Amino acid sequence: MNHYDAPLRDMKFVINELANLEAIASLPGYEDASIETVDAILTQAAKFSSEVIAPINQAGDMQGCGLIENHVSTPAGVQDAYREFVAGGWNGLRFAQEYGGQGLPSLVAGPVFEMIAAANMGFSLCPMLTSGAIEALFLCGSDSQKETYLRPLIEGRWTGTMNLTEPQAGSDLGAVRTRAVPDGECFRLFGQKIFITHGEHDLAENIVHLVLARLPGAPEGIKGISLFLVPKFLVNADGSLGARNDVRCVALEHKLGIHSSPTAVMAYGDRDGAAGYLVGEANRGIEYMFIMMNEARYAVGLQGVGIGERAYQQALSYARERIQSKDAAMPRGDAVPIIRHPDVRRMLMTMKALTEANRALAYVIAAANDEAHRSPDPETRTRSRAFVEFMTPVNKGWATEAAIEVTHLAVQIHGGMGFIEETGVAQHLRDARITTLYEGTTGIQANDLVGRKTARDGGAAARAVAAAMRADIDELARHDDPHAMTICQRLQHAVNAFEACVDWIVATYTHDPKTVLAGAVPFLKLTGLVCGGWQMARAAAVALRRLNDGDSDARFLREKLNTARFYSDQLLAQVDGLRAIVIDGATAVLDFDESPA
Amino acid sequence: MNHYDAPLRDMKFVINELANLEAIASLPGYEDASIETVDAILTQAAKFSSEVIAPINQAGDMQGCGLIENHVSTPAGVQDAYREFVAGGWNGLRFAQEYGGQGLPSLVAGPVFEMIAAANMGFSLCPMLTSGAIEALFLCGSDSQKETYLRPLIEGRWTGTMNLTEPQAGSDLGAVRTRAVPDGECFRLFGQKIFITHGEHDLAENIVHLVLARLPGAPEGIKGISLFLVPKFLVNADGSLGARNDVRCVALEHKLGIHSSPTAVMAYGDRDGAAGYLVGEANRGIEYMFIMMNEARYAVGLQGVGIGERAYQQALSYARERIQSKDAAMPRGDAVPIIRHPDVRRMLMTMKALTEANRALAYVIAAANDEAHRSPDPETRTRSRAFVEFMTPVNKGWATEAAIEVTHLAVQIHGGMGFIEETGVAQHLRDARITTLYEGTTGIQANDLVGRKTARDGGAAARAVAAAMRADIDELARHDDPHAMTICQRLQHAVNAFEACVDWIVATYTHDPKTVLAGAVPFLKLTGLVCGGWQMARAAAVALRRLNDGDSDARFLREKLNTARFYSDQLLAQVDGLRAIVIDGATAVLDFDESPA
Repeated sequence: MNHYDAPLRDMKFVINELANLEAIASLPGYEDASIETVDAILTQAAKFSSEVIAPINQAGDMQGCGLIENHVSTPAGVQDAYREFVAGGWNGLRFAQEYGGQGLPSLVAGPVFEMIAAANMGFSLCPMLTSGAIEALFLCGSDSQKETYLRPLIEGRWTGTMNLTEPQAGSDLGAVRTRAVPDGECFRLFGQKIFITHGEHDLAENIVHLVLARLPGAPEGIKGISLFLVPKFLVNADGSLGARNDVRCVALEHKLGIHSSPTAVMAYGDRDGAAGYLVGEANRGIEYMFIMMNEARYAVGLQGVGIGERAYQQALSYARERIQSKDAAMPRGDAVPIIRHPDVRRMLMTMKALTEANRALAYVIAAANDEAHRSPDPETRTRSRAFVEFMTPVNKGWATEAAIEVTHLAVQIHGGMGFIEETGVAQHLRDARITTLYEGTTGIQANDLVGRKTARDGGAAARAVAAAMRADIDELARHDDPHAMTICQRLQHAVNAFEACVDWIVATYTHDPKTVLAGAVPFLKLTGLVCGGWQMARAAAVALRRLNDGDSDARFLREKLNTARFYSDQLLAQVDGLRAIVIDGATAVLDFDESPA
Repeated sequence: MNHYDAPLRDMKFVINELANLEAIASLPGYEDASIETVDAILTQAAKFSSEVIAPINQAGDMQGCGLIENHVSTPAGVQDAYREFVAGGWNGLRFAQEYGGQGLPSLVAGPVFEMIAAANMGFSLCPMLTSGAIEALFLCGSDSQKETYLRPLIEGRWTGTMNLTEPQAGSDLGAVRTRAVPDGECFRLFGQKIFITHGEHDLAENIVHLVLARLPGAPEGIKGISLFLVPKFLVNADGSLGARNDVRCVALEHKLGIHSSPTAVMAYGDRDGAAGYLVGEANRGIEYMFIMMNEARYAVGLQGVGIGERAYQQALSYARERIQSKDAAMPRGDAVPIIRHPDVRRMLMTMKALTEANRALAYVIAAANDEAHRSPDPETRTRSRAFVEFMTPVNKGWATEAAIEVTHLAVQIHGGMGFIEETGVAQHLRDARITTLYEGTTGIQANDLVGRKTARDGGAAARAVAAAMRADIDELARHDDPHAMTICQRLQHAVNAFEACVDWIVATYTHDPKTVLAGAVPFLKLTGLVCGGWQMARAAAVALRRLNDGDSDARFLREKLNTARFYSDQLLAQVDGLRAIVIDGATAVLDFDESPA
């Protein structure tokens, strides 16, 4: 059963109880996001994702994209699905109403994106990249650029791309060599860009490439990179499409996964140069690029949650149906569904706990992002922004590493059947594998976390998170419940470990960055685990309160409490080991003799 | 650089220093296995694996196998390579000389198999299955069966298969339904078998299927299963091939990896029944099957080591060549090879440490297996057999789980390039993914470990391992060296955790098996980690002794010491968390509400 049903109950629980939609809907500009309206939107999105895009996921993986003479064809059914996506207004949920968007908070758009990514990760990439382009143009584009490009992008009639890297550059964008030569009011671009997601396709009338390039005489390195807008078709003054620009897809990559998303090699200026328009100021391209990048990083974290949910659902369904071997406590009984076997339950609980914790953290970050933009209180805005900035690499890094573990376990639960492609579960593993690589590897996220986000402010943002966690532990500790006591005790211990790492990083980073960086990914994982445990503890407190109040949804709430207990028993158990690696694990890493023998 | 060079130096270090080839070569029947002879064999095997089968690995993955009217074609080049494999006598290394083998110890055949699996995992499957069939026939076949089948199988002119499971059975072989009807001196088999590795192919003159089936009136469940020999071509009295038997390949699976190994659906008796011959006694098929299975489990552990080594080599090579970003300690310097970045080093060290530890453990098990068979001292044989039996699920389970982590990290080190199939590193991840599934999933290994191998003898075999570890810690502690002190301290702590788990399992299993089974896989991982740490500590002791003696290979020895230090710092750090999960992690697993909401 390779089916997807959006987990609406858990999503709404998190949106309402943990991310506090009511408070977000009270912010200026978000008045439309009432609980009822959001409920209706989520229900529609669930229907769209399960009925329109989930069914074409596996066939799209098998068929893949084709390239014939610079034209890219997407797999059967994707064009129709994308048309429905545009018609439903799904692309513009969170963008400005003045440009055709719906002006909804990230706390609504995020869960909808999770559903789309879960239903069809390849499909989700096109809107993900378009959103990044919209955000960059909205914040950095000229009025005329906004007037020309934003509305069709927000509607989804046109799509956007991020053209960052080149073969020699990888994650080091300072090494970009693409040139932009002034030519009247515009520029002519020359160069080759690789790994361009949806760089060419047959889904939209036009494609708006945002491209990093160097102006003549620009400074070396990242301080000499500018951002250019290069449309596939030039746009006339009336908004209609003009001549084909000198930008072509010259190859598609053969990838491990996300086969329905074309990953293009783009050639700029093979003839007379691709016409491009400077976005914002010259030499500030990297700064603008980070606007897109942070958008995309957040979205990739949601992809991790979504693909994990999808894999969990498939594994759960299989484990309930597959009859094999007897119950260990009933050696004379019949063979039972494998979900009765303790190890299968352990794997399912691991998948469920990781996915729910990362979902909760992602939505709480979305709400903080909404506050950072719209709160009337400057202190709240500042505090929320610091939280979002600290959490962005944690969420991107940890939700995606967790997604790889979750999809791995989904294959494992299927046994030999998991290795057979027709089963469909291996696709999730292959699709998930990109998430720790693109938009900055886990290593890049971790370097950002320890350097810019932890050491630079002396640990202030990190300690604010720890303080918030302690307050929520106190809240949960008020409940006279054995699960609550265990969860509080284990989370308290984990928060102590987190703070110990923060103190050590702050004290060490300036004089010995390499020792700290050797433990950067373990610190990111530790932070993700602890913050996930925090959200599970908050969920447990809500569940206990509502159970005490005689809530009718008792089964869901007891299950939530049980999942929080599992999380504290089995996932927080990893924290001490990670602390040891962070603080005391670098010696042999740095001593590794790297030269060939 | 997708190349493979057998790691001869590490292999010989383990063979000679940790597995004590000299002692094995002194056992009756192994006199030929002198250090010099073994050295020559390993050198030849390294040449064969790197020059003949490694070069066809990636192309074979891309091409895959074809099926046309029951005939299976293997990818280009495999036939030639298999011919060279047979001509070189590689198939018969450890089998009886009276049937054409070379009678060498497992301690020689194991490392050679590791090389073959590393060079080309798909290729390695055919000899792996043939070896299982040889072993089963050697121990359980009649004289006439041995006379007819063993020599061509040992030479590799014929190949063997294991036909165990069926669609409804999975790992629960008691549910097998294939029927065997008496027909004069033989039997007629009717039924369908799935997941038959190299069930049909174009590499050999004949294929000898060993098939589980039920005789009329046999008891239900696993006590009513018998083992039959069913050749693809019937064999005449003079050994020449006769009529085609009624067994056909009706489909090949589309798999995530090991594309060059055909995984067949086999139909028996579509016409008048497939002629089969009973192996051993009726209704003892499962017992005989475990002979093949234990062979195969050990071999799969070696595949884990091999594929990990292959992935490590590719990642190391890439990390040395790929220039990207500045050294964190030299912000004004040029971009450096990524191996200078601490997180890349951490990943490489993780890969290296896991692979070397699992190799060492696997070879030590091979040596114990040789002692169990050939030691003139009955007590040594008994002790060695108990060690091998305890270690078989640990090695199979942990070396393969580690291989998945190692191949995952190899992709991660490549960044976005790792996701591109042409790079070749994703293939290792896909190939490795089968190793925790076939020949018994990790869950099956773990159940075997806690039930049959730990609880049943009251923890005796496990405590013998712990005692051996403590003796080796004392040995290492004699060295006045800071690395040695740290390694001893951490391993001591880990051994304590292992023994605490063993005590708890023994005390709990009989009255509460499900609570124990909920932690079976974490216990297997803990055991694998601790036993790997044990071998690394032994390696460190050898390295220190030889360094003190002024050995000329100082760089290799210092690196070995550093790897042992890394292992104790970063991998043994996981042990406490695993102990908590094993002993105190089952509550929420067992309380999981499994029914649909």
